[in-house]
Amino acid sequence: MSLARVLLGRILPNARNEERKLTAFEGVPAMGLDGLGSSAYGPEAALTVLIPLGAAGLAHVGPILGVIVGLLLILFASYWQTIAAYPSNGGAYVVSRDNLGRTASLVAAAALMIDYVLNVAVGISAGVGALVSAVPSLHPYILELCLGILAVLTLVNLRGTLDAGRLFALPTYTFVASFLALLALGVARAIAADGAPQPIMAPPPVPAATEPVTIWLLLRAFASGCTAMTGVEAVSNGVGAFKEPALRHAHRTLAAIVVLLALLLVAIGALVRAYGISAMDQAQPGYQSVLSQLAAAIAGRGAFYHVAIGSLLCVLALSANTSFVDFPRLCRMVAGDGYLPRPFAIVGRRLVFSVGIAYLTLTAGLLLVAFGGITEHLIPLFAIGAFLTFTLSQSGMVAHWRKALRSPAPARPEQPGRSRAHMRAHLAINLVGASATAIALAVIVATKLFEGAWITLLAIPAVVLLLRAIRGYYDQLDARVRDGRPLRLAAREPPVVIVATERWNRLTDKAVRFALQLSREVFAVHVMALEGAQDEAAHALQARWATDVEAPARAAGLPPPRLLLLRAEYRRMHGPLLELIRELQAQFPGRTLAILLPELIKTRWWQYLLHTHRARRLRSRLLRSGGSRLVLINIPWYLEEPDLDAAISEEAAAQEAPSSEETTAQEANVQEATGREGADRAE
Amino acid sequence: MSLARVLLGRILPNARNEERKLTAFEGVPAMGLDGLGSSAYGPEAALTVLIPLGAAGLAHVGPILGVIVGLLLILFASYWQTIAAYPSNGGAYVVSRDNLGRTASLVAAAALMIDYVLNVAVGISAGVGALVSAVPSLHPYILELCLGILAVLTLVNLRGTLDAGRLFALPTYTFVASFLALLALGVARAIAADGAPQPIMAPPPVPAATEPVTIWLLLRAFASGCTAMTGVEAVSNGVGAFKEPALRHAHRTLAAIVVLLALLLVAIGALVRAYGISAMDQAQPGYQSVLSQLAAAIAGRGAFYHVAIGSLLCVLALSANTSFVDFPRLCRMVAGDGYLPRPFAIVGRRLVFSVGIAYLTLTAGLLLVAFGGITEHLIPLFAIGAFLTFTLSQSGMVAHWRKALRSPAPARPEQPGRSRAHMRAHLAINLVGASATAIALAVIVATKLFEGAWITLLAIPAVVLLLRAIRGYYDQLDARVRDGRPLRLAAREPPVVIVATERWNRLTDKAVRFALQLSREVFAVHVMALEGAQDEAAHALQARWATDVEAPARAAGLPPPRLLLLRAEYRRMHGPLLELIRELQAQFPGRTLAILLPELIKTRWWQYLLHTHRARRLRSRLLRSGGSRLVLINIPWYLEEPDLDAAISEEAAAQEAPSSEETTAQEANVQEATGREGADRAE
Repeated sequence: MSLARVLLGRILPNARNEERKLTAFEGVPAMGLDGLGSSAYGPEAALTVLIPLGAAGLAHVGPILGVIVGLLLILFASYWQTIAAYPSNGGAYVVSRDNLGRTASLVAAAALMIDYVLNVAVGISAGVGALVSAVPSLHPYILELCLGILAVLTLVNLRGTLDAGRLFALPTYTFVASFLALLALGVARAIAADGAPQPIMAPPPVPAATEPVTIWLLLRAFASGCTAMTGVEAVSNGVGAFKEPALRHAHRTLAAIVVLLALLLVAIGALVRAYGISAMDQAQPGYQSVLSQLAAAIAGRGAFYHVAIGSLLCVLALSANTSFVDFPRLCRMVAGDGYLPRPFAIVGRRLVFSVGIAYLTLTAGLLLVAFGGITEHLIPLFAIGAFLTFTLSQSGMVAHWRKALRSPAPARPEQPGRSRAHMRAHLAINLVGASATAIALAVIVATKLFEGAWITLLAIPAVVLLLRAIRGYYDQLDARVRDGRPLRLAAREPPVVIVATERWNRLTDKAVRFALQLSREVFAVHVMALEGAQDEAAHALQARWATDVEAPARAAGLPPPRLLLLRAEYRRMHGPLLELIRELQAQFPGRTLAILLPELIKTRWWQYLLHTHRARRLRSRLLRSGGSRLVLINIPWYLEEPDLDAAISEEAAAQEAPSSEETTAQEANVQEATGREGADRAE
Repeated sequence: MSLARVLLGRILPNARNEERKLTAFEGVPAMGLDGLGSSAYGPEAALTVLIPLGAAGLAHVGPILGVIVGLLLILFASYWQTIAAYPSNGGAYVVSRDNLGRTASLVAAAALMIDYVLNVAVGISAGVGALVSAVPSLHPYILELCLGILAVLTLVNLRGTLDAGRLFALPTYTFVASFLALLALGVARAIAADGAPQPIMAPPPVPAATEPVTIWLLLRAFASGCTAMTGVEAVSNGVGAFKEPALRHAHRTLAAIVVLLALLLVAIGALVRAYGISAMDQAQPGYQSVLSQLAAAIAGRGAFYHVAIGSLLCVLALSANTSFVDFPRLCRMVAGDGYLPRPFAIVGRRLVFSVGIAYLTLTAGLLLVAFGGITEHLIPLFAIGAFLTFTLSQSGMVAHWRKALRSPAPARPEQPGRSRAHMRAHLAINLVGASATAIALAVIVATKLFEGAWITLLAIPAVVLLLRAIRGYYDQLDARVRDGRPLRLAAREPPVVIVATERWNRLTDKAVRFALQLSREVFAVHVMALEGAQDEAAHALQARWATDVEAPARAAGLPPPRLLLLRAEYRRMHGPLLELIRELQAQFPGRTLAILLPELIKTRWWQYLLHTHRARRLRSRLLRSGGSRLVLINIPWYLEEPDLDAAISEEAAAQEAPSSEETTAQEANVQEATGREGADRAE
């Protein structure tokens, strides 16, 4: 309890939900790290495919990155208006659900969920990989470093999205500032030197060409480079995390991320060619990443280089944060529609969806452990999910605008400026976006199918089936539990009561008293031979029963409770008790059977080691197989009477105080609820 | 469930307890492996201390082992009559408890428990160490091999002591037969060659002397050699495991173990000198154990050698079995006296004390993991415990005989031949035993104190304090729970009932119906805003309450149950509920509060993932802090009505059938217990 409070902070009241939300300042670190981090590996991935072309490859990087930036800007425009059209949440799941139907939305949800889990594992291990190649002495601790970063991300996000946004602002903005400055310097030098600047530290020579230029190779380079665009959808999935006016904050965040990413990609594309920098084989010793070569060429290996590369490492390692912000929100929506377990929809102590965060940590942690912290071969599984959701989201918007155009009245009369001409323009933009991302998706599938993308193509339908199965269970449950009729009352006899007794002590005394309050048919049951030996407690109990129980009951005019001794030849209570229940159900048809379990309440951890927990196990066994004519009654017995006031104040101490009006309102509720007069209902 | 049945077998009835016990044939493998295995390391330990004496050391081995065998025979005589005097259990704990008082018995228990845990870790790792030096390719898997053997020992012993005795009989008797044959052959050759036989494979030359003979060195050799005697007390601690007549089987087992051990020690002492075999440094490459050198010298390295050494490895690795037989039985007795947690006294599915076995596995496993499977430096901790219990046990017997002699009548008139002269003879034997082991203990403490024996000397009092603290808790608990008075009945009002409601469904319907059966004061409570949002279920519930609940209740002439809506600003139910309980307790002084928790019963593992478990958590919170005026009532609701008959037959399927009379007797019990006439009490 106290540990949770130290690690995660006090429990936040619902009333603080609004003030815990993000502005664009926290939005960029919270959701943008994935997108910005892509600038490090997208160009590098394209250049890696181009290695066999030698120096000729460098000429093609610019155009490829140009196409990618073009696609990025189309996506930007599309998402901009998606967010405007769905100001509460414009993620691919919601847009597909409302416009393309259930199956499309579940495909989008599955693709996004898989991507988010992969992004955590791949993001962290990429960051740690870069760190380890910078500081080789850390090499033996790759997995520990990965799990450590995962633990930090989990804790920070369990404290709240706002906390994560604030904490990660420093590395994010350091990265942006230092790389913008670096690249601006490089571009200025390149212009000054007429496109052939002198590197401060010369990059390794570009290897000789081994293959001719083919369309297939260029397509593969494009497909690999497309990883630069992953993370762009993040804002649309997390609109709910922004402060009011959420639309404006979300738009600003999206714009900041896309503009920064585009600038970085364009500058990298130009400077790579100007400085003659090509990708190196990661498996070879002396490997340096493209951005590291570029930074060294522009600024040398001084303090500036180290700040820039250091902040890049942080951005890579923390790029998983995007998943931690979006995954739980996505799961919450899917759970709200009944396609994921209900715990995913529960708001945790810090107003975030803790179950989703925990699940993300668990699955990503398992992936990291399974692959020993080196998850490079998971990268090909990646881009498919992203481009599938891009395409579904844009197609959904196309359907949205067509529906709006078909409806006679303006679709959203409350929003001015939504004329039919505007809608046609929106339709056109989303149509271009959908087509472009669909083509890119086709290219990616074609080029990466056998590198592992087939796993994603199999996993998505599997997840969709699972989601449907979950919904099926809830639907069935709802149908069974629903009660269309009013309360059905019929005069019924009181329950037949069974009191479980170990010996005659205060617990039994209390339970028998309560039993006699409930019913005239009371049986006390003692199960003998549980310890495998002759049971002396049984004889002692039997000896006292007549004088200490039956006589006082008769004196009080009550039918005396009867003591039944059952033998547990196999030392388990529930076997003989279930048989007794069967007998009594036959003997008292139509009556409820109430089983009273006296229980010594344990309040300290070591007490759990000193008792046998028979009552607890018996309870769950009986509930499991007892049937609907059974009720179980726990009669607590305390070594020390608990202090209700202390428990209430302890609870309050773990809570962040609400504003003063809140307190008053809450107290008023309880008052009203328990007042006997007038207020039968309170709200 | 099913896995437990496959691994451990069916649940055994109490009636089979007798037939699951041991004869001497199973007793030697079950309890003797520790003692017999000692023959391998006792002489080796003495010889290792004597290494600095060179060839001169060999002359001293014989006398040292002679003293040890003498001590062993004294112990044998002492334990023989201890077992006879305490035919149900003659362990050091019981004998000290009955004759020397509580503290002495707890010291004995602590020493034994520590020894048993150490014996498991050291025994297994010694066996694996020997195996690894024979098959060096297994070296990387030391810890895995140790844990594997531990797992096998645990499983076999959880299946039952009899199963362990039968399974381990083959390696035990192979070891005994092959070593007796080997040593007999050696002795015959030595006699034929006038004390200087020609070795088939010559042992390595004895190193030159580097130190003179001193008393201190000889004492140290003796102290180390005394480890040959550990395990001799095992039979006395496990008398309860033998079939009737237990005394005869225990005596036979003890005799077999001691006679075999003495023969082995005498023969080894003689042959080591005859063949000129000395101990080698274990840390040096090419190390061979003394028994391996001896076997090679006598028989060469043929098939016979490999059978003998292979069975020796098994005996060493399985010597931990003695602990698995005795430790749980010791813990059971200590727990029976209230000095250990009650679960240690519970008879498990196979009529052994499963908790003790599990605890032994856990602690020994932690030791093995902590030391990476190499536990040599735990050996000095060992002998102290053993000799302390020897001494306490013999001293207890001395006190026993003195008491018997002081009493006017014959102590045990039912046993003939217990004249006072006999008793005096017994007293003398035990006195000699006590003195001899006390002297040996003093020597061991003096020589091994700084090698680690001080840890044992600190650990024993710590364990004694823990045992006393546990007993203190139970004493306090008993005093609080004891009920000297008869049932106190006073006319009391029915409880005030609170029904926890989520929405109007069949669960609520059932719970409200039951509530109206119990009381006229019924409150339905709905806690709002648990999911952090506006609560639409609350409004729906409120809307239906008047028509669907209040109206039918009024029509039936009952006061309508009131619906209270509470806000959970912090999304936890128990906070607002505890406040409500406080209010209602103030409003209805002296009345019991019954809280009804409708619960959907889950029968499949995946259902646990799909529900929120609020009812369960709420239940334990309320029980913890609600106070003694509260009772909790579980109203189960089933998606599918459970089949009581099926549950009963499933239970029966997991059980080993008792003999036919047993079945009849058990059925008769249930019949009698539920018959309404005459038989108020059954046994």
